[in-house]
Amino acid sequence: MIHLATLPSGARALLIDLARATDTPVSFLSKIMQALRRAKLIGSQRGKRGGFELLAKGRAASMYEVIEAIDGPIFLNTCLVSGKSCERSAWCPAHPVWGRAQGAMLNVLQASIQELAGSAKRLQNGQPNELKVLVVVH
Amino acid sequence: MIHLATLPSGARALLIDLARATDTPVSFLSKIMQALRRAKLIGSQRGKRGGFELLAKGRAASMYEVIEAIDGPIFLNTCLVSGKSCERSAWCPAHPVWGRAQGAMLNVLQASIQELAGSAKRLQNGQPNELKVLVVVH
Repeated sequence: MIHLATLPSGARALLIDLARATDTPVSFLSKIMQALRRAKLIGSQRGKRGGFELLAKGRAASMYEVIEAIDGPIFLNTCLVSGKSCERSAWCPAHPVWGRAQGAMLNVLQASIQELAGSAKRLQNGQPNELKVLVVVH
Repeated sequence: MIHLATLPSGARALLIDLARATDTPVSFLSKIMQALRRAKLIGSQRGKRGGFELLAKGRAASMYEVIEAIDGPIFLNTCLVSGKSCERSAWCPAHPVWGRAQGAMLNVLQASIQELAGSAKRLQNGQPNELKVLVVVH
């Protein structure tokens, strides 16, 4: 997602190129891309100029929304799973600590893909570069 | 651990009573107690006045130290596992976000067993009480 967000707006990338850029096996990445497409974070086009592209929703998405689209929601403990309840949670002193720990973690994961792409560009200045690595692999 | 910390100093509790107080199967709890004993957070004595007792290290321990003694260290992502390294982490913009998310979570889990026992006592005032539940089960 961050790699797609560093490409020029509207650019599409082939699965094979995304796999190289992210050091990810094609078969595994293919499943990830399906999940991201189902969540409408990315789109795909077939044909000669086809490939995967970031949708506006994906660019605005938080890191947490991307994780959730792939792995489902994160719960640090079963007592935090929505819809489930533990009869001890009303008075269990560990329950609110788990809740605050999860809240603190999720708060950090609100960083948006757009922001992360900006920091990717800054980090790559003078650092080993994803696209340079891509050329070496070719 | 919190339950043990609410008992009078030096008191010992039998596994069967701890299992009742925590709604936990004895066989499962027995493994947890072994892990806590290995970490020197609790001690145990055999015999007529035997049972499990909280050690000073256990009373001062954080919730995280207890989790770690049972489940091992928590890592939100493999790129945060100590000793392991990901060659992408120097420039991957998601890596520092994972690090901050983990730090924020661990910071909350620093709440000590002693503190949690204090809040357990406060929560139990006028609330369904662990010890009352114990009597009902008897």
